[in-house]
Amino acid sequence: MAPLRESSGDPVLPDPPQGPLHVARARASFPWKELALFWEGEDTLRFKKAIFSALENDPLFAHPRGSRLSVEKYQELNFLRCKRVFEYDFLPVGDMLDSLPRVLALIECLGMYDWSLAVKFFLHVLTFGSAIYSSGSERHLKYLPKIFSLEIFGCFALTEVSHGSNTKGIRTTAHYDPSTQEFIIHSPDFEAAKFWVGNMGKTATHAVVFAQLYTPGGQCHGLHPFLVQIRDPKTLLPMPGVMVGDIGKKLGQNGLDNGFAMFHKVRIPRQDLLNRSGDVTPEGAYVTHVKDVGQRFSESLGSLSSGRVAIVGMSVVNLKLAVSIALRFSATRRQFGPTDKEEVPVLQYPMQQWRLLPYLAAAYALDHFFKSLFLDLGELQQGLLGKDRSVRQAELGREIHALSSAGKPLASWTAQRGIQECREACGGHGYLAMNRLGDLRDDNDPNCTYEGDNSVLLQQTSRYLLGLLARRGPGGARIESPLKTVDFLDGYADILGRRFEGSSPEDLLDSSVPLAAYEWLVCYLLRESHQKLSREKRSGKSDFEAINDCQVYHCRPLALAFLELTVVRRFHEHTHQPRVPPPLRAVLRRLSALYALWSLSQHTALLYRGGYFSGERAGKVLESAILALCAQLKDDAVALVDVIAPPDFILDSPIGRADGEKTVPLTTEHWIRAS
Amino acid sequence: MAPLRESSGDPVLPDPPQGPLHVARARASFPWKELALFWEGEDTLRFKKAIFSALENDPLFAHPRGSRLSVEKYQELNFLRCKRVFEYDFLPVGDMLDSLPRVLALIECLGMYDWSLAVKFFLHVLTFGSAIYSSGSERHLKYLPKIFSLEIFGCFALTEVSHGSNTKGIRTTAHYDPSTQEFIIHSPDFEAAKFWVGNMGKTATHAVVFAQLYTPGGQCHGLHPFLVQIRDPKTLLPMPGVMVGDIGKKLGQNGLDNGFAMFHKVRIPRQDLLNRSGDVTPEGAYVTHVKDVGQRFSESLGSLSSGRVAIVGMSVVNLKLAVSIALRFSATRRQFGPTDKEEVPVLQYPMQQWRLLPYLAAAYALDHFFKSLFLDLGELQQGLLGKDRSVRQAELGREIHALSSAGKPLASWTAQRGIQECREACGGHGYLAMNRLGDLRDDNDPNCTYEGDNSVLLQQTSRYLLGLLARRGPGGARIESPLKTVDFLDGYADILGRRFEGSSPEDLLDSSVPLAAYEWLVCYLLRESHQKLSREKRSGKSDFEAINDCQVYHCRPLALAFLELTVVRRFHEHTHQPRVPPPLRAVLRRLSALYALWSLSQHTALLYRGGYFSGERAGKVLESAILALCAQLKDDAVALVDVIAPPDFILDSPIGRADGEKTVPLTTEHWIRAS
Repeated sequence: MAPLRESSGDPVLPDPPQGPLHVARARASFPWKELALFWEGEDTLRFKKAIFSALENDPLFAHPRGSRLSVEKYQELNFLRCKRVFEYDFLPVGDMLDSLPRVLALIECLGMYDWSLAVKFFLHVLTFGSAIYSSGSERHLKYLPKIFSLEIFGCFALTEVSHGSNTKGIRTTAHYDPSTQEFIIHSPDFEAAKFWVGNMGKTATHAVVFAQLYTPGGQCHGLHPFLVQIRDPKTLLPMPGVMVGDIGKKLGQNGLDNGFAMFHKVRIPRQDLLNRSGDVTPEGAYVTHVKDVGQRFSESLGSLSSGRVAIVGMSVVNLKLAVSIALRFSATRRQFGPTDKEEVPVLQYPMQQWRLLPYLAAAYALDHFFKSLFLDLGELQQGLLGKDRSVRQAELGREIHALSSAGKPLASWTAQRGIQECREACGGHGYLAMNRLGDLRDDNDPNCTYEGDNSVLLQQTSRYLLGLLARRGPGGARIESPLKTVDFLDGYADILGRRFEGSSPEDLLDSSVPLAAYEWLVCYLLRESHQKLSREKRSGKSDFEAINDCQVYHCRPLALAFLELTVVRRFHEHTHQPRVPPPLRAVLRRLSALYALWSLSQHTALLYRGGYFSGERAGKVLESAILALCAQLKDDAVALVDVIAPPDFILDSPIGRADGEKTVPLTTEHWIRAS
Repeated sequence: MAPLRESSGDPVLPDPPQGPLHVARARASFPWKELALFWEGEDTLRFKKAIFSALENDPLFAHPRGSRLSVEKYQELNFLRCKRVFEYDFLPVGDMLDSLPRVLALIECLGMYDWSLAVKFFLHVLTFGSAIYSSGSERHLKYLPKIFSLEIFGCFALTEVSHGSNTKGIRTTAHYDPSTQEFIIHSPDFEAAKFWVGNMGKTATHAVVFAQLYTPGGQCHGLHPFLVQIRDPKTLLPMPGVMVGDIGKKLGQNGLDNGFAMFHKVRIPRQDLLNRSGDVTPEGAYVTHVKDVGQRFSESLGSLSSGRVAIVGMSVVNLKLAVSIALRFSATRRQFGPTDKEEVPVLQYPMQQWRLLPYLAAAYALDHFFKSLFLDLGELQQGLLGKDRSVRQAELGREIHALSSAGKPLASWTAQRGIQECREACGGHGYLAMNRLGDLRDDNDPNCTYEGDNSVLLQQTSRYLLGLLARRGPGGARIESPLKTVDFLDGYADILGRRFEGSSPEDLLDSSVPLAAYEWLVCYLLRESHQKLSREKRSGKSDFEAINDCQVYHCRPLALAFLELTVVRRFHEHTHQPRVPPPLRAVLRRLSALYALWSLSQHTALLYRGGYFSGERAGKVLESAILALCAQLKDDAVALVDVIAPPDFILDSPIGRADGEKTVPLTTEHWIRAS
């Protein structure tokens, strides 16, 4: 393949630098540049390279970042970097909607540099900006140019001190006063203070505030979004009646200023209600095109599902960075060996391969899932903006809600565990802050709980699946969905009759085998969950109690297994399509099989219990196949990392350098030379 | 029970403060003070109270600590606090050997306050001090008073940049020069620099340095410890030829100054070889009473096993603190409910119980295991100091080595996962640095890799077990060990014939059932590992290769399951002994059963695969029993926490307050009041 060249003559994919990793790289079974091209596409590769180069060449982005800075210094630098990203205007607003792959690439590039920066940028442009665009109406369009010129800086204020997951419990109020045509925004007590809000701590001038809307006479119309100015843009002093500040140090993402706010009878113009789903006339009458409070509620929270999809992507980026660091380290770090004289790279040990290579496979599988889900979300949002009220659009919304509600838990937990495994697999070197695995773990950590606690969110997905089964019933409609993720459930009864048929590890080296096992597993868990729930209800429990009593061993694993199946299926299809270049087929199919079998092996107990597996052999061939795939992939690991790792400046980890040189840049201020 | 009273009249166990947790506390099925007395003993309770009070009343120990300080400030404060602990002289040196429970209590109290402090203190007194005492001879006794007066400050320098787990690969050299009767300590290159060494970064004046000993003529006698002065005690400037400094920020324990050192032909007197296992005459002849290099090697590294036992204890303390915080939070935090109006404490949800209560049970089970192992270690060390060369002493050494080599992985991983679960179970509040779950996780993190990487260490335990099986053979000797942890293996063949017999969840509510299952599991994994290893060797692989190929699914789970069995057995025996006060029996047996079943449930796949479980029912009753125990224990959770949690000042977590008041002490510098 001819090297890609930019107009300047620089190759888009330069050869990796020479060094100790050269030996490991030379063993790869495939040309990594061809995989990079297949995986990203040439336009995205060029776009990412331009962003990375801009950051690397700009002194404002010089190190340090992350936990090596004090919180104050970090937040200050982060705001300046955010402002600079606006100035670069990598992706003009007009192009955003037309080029979703570039939006993805921009998120990924900024996040690879530092999530505090990426989150700050996107909270303002996408979360705050699109809340105004999609929850407001013509009268709010005037704010959009101000957002892009940074004349105002925004945040999205939903969560309160005492209510996060249960958004219906939000207690900030907005009473309408017809005498002045104003809303009065008020926090009844400290537990109702807005809390956690990104950008609110020090920098936001405006907030989209969710509050319970009351009309004169005291009727409550539920949660609505209001645009509230919280600071003077010139002085950054709080507006009258607003008490606002930073919530203090967090475990990660400390470059982002998360804030709290209490409102003491703050008056805002009637027009600053974001009125897409409901409005109040000057006289104080509530008007809406949405009939049902529940539907209005879900419309006004619609913007949250995109947050969950974004978190899937954030988690994938963190996992990519962590495996890149740990695998490059493992390919050069030597410890022990067949004789006392000769030591071997730790990646030669089956244990080290088994600790790390499944996470490399997961990074690829989840990366593909994220990108496909992001495109699905784009389709959904096009429909929302086009006011599509078709059945298909509603079904698509439900399906994407189910996918993102379990996708966020699966991706964030996989990343959290993977980063921890990578840190431990690098031993003491992983424990040094400068090698970045700690920052990656800490910056990934909130992905597990914000935008809905993972364990709570999973209920959304299991409820969706149980609902499909209920709607089907005997002689009911076919089970199908716009994205076809649940269509297999139509063969529910037949699938439950399937049994595992592989008898040697070789039978399992393709992801079609675990795919079939996953279909059985999801059907089994669905049947078990359905039966358990019916039993609990028949025993006299309330719905609330019955559902809670079915979570741990039924609905929770059901939701996770369904998502794993979806990830496995999409990756299987992606790696088995005819347009995969022949030199890449073997390595991609191995990644697909490894991710699928490794994920499936967490459920071996259920495969046996439900009768899909029987006899000692089934469990053993599953284990052998995983180890065989690890052994097959170990020589490809460094090249697979070259495809997903950013340049050294962005990766920012001495043990993860592309050349494999072992460097230990000690803190020179403590390096006292002896006389 | 009458309240315990100190001479001052203050009760040793004061009533918890009134507040929102009162309701949850009042539901407990047992008197928590009686459990505290049973668990700790009155002397230990008094001793701990005296330490906690001293720290709380001394302004030097006022907050902050941990990640809320800059590294420089933290290290400075930590050294001053360490010095102050010496001044308090809580446990005079002479009393240490006679009062192991007080040594334990001192470690726990200082660690609960801050591991950076505890580690700094014990590295100097125990690791450095006892290395001199136990590896040296009469001629080194002169150093001991200087250690206790802080005239010198010490560190223990084994690990190098490129060699951690493989200590045989250490490359620092010590050449003997008879012309001056000196050793020349030298680091051949940067990869041989001592690295990670606690206390070496800024404060140590002396180091026990491990180096390869060479006599004139060039013969190498292997690794030996040398006492090397590295800094001038008055100026703290490095000694000539010594390049020493701090390794920089780590993920946790940043109050501790971890350092590196390179030696450029540093000369030390012949007498500063710590010569217990080998010595050099003035003329340069090597003399030793130990015949075999391997034995000498293990004698000189003997002091390491106590480090592993200590890490078990450190991990347990971290887990205790984390579950205390998360359970108190969960008993008062309300979210969702049967109706929109009424919200219930999140601990009422089976999911939250299942996430947290097994870790509470693990904290108790592992705490008991740690204390018993610490006493076993005391017995071993008495024997070593008494130069006991009996077969029993050697067997005891091997057994404790096997227990600590898998005990450290089990405890540190359980704590790491438990802290992460606690952090997530507290949602956003767990993500705030001030609530301490982040510091606990970060301070626990190195426990997984130092003193031997967990995954590598587990090999020591599996090798021990495989060795016992090999020695037995057909018609061979009985399998038994001084601590009786392996005696059950004598019934190996019979145990392999056992099958699970419980048929309802009630059958599993006592830990005797999982205990029997664990015996089967260990025998099964031992047989599988033995057969696999034989197969690999027969196929022509070298020992090195064959052993590596048996780790992932054989030797690794074997070592972990054996340790879990040992923990389960010891906790079962402790909770079922006749001297347990009757009001405590039910709750302690529930904790024992929950820990045992929850641990066992990780191995359900193997129970099915090997035929111990069959049919759907077995797996289901295991799950039901775990949930039933969680439900039974939920009302005891707050009282169980009261037994293990330190005073609020030490726990240092606003969401973990003993009264249950929800406080969010915002950083006042950012709390800008509106005009």
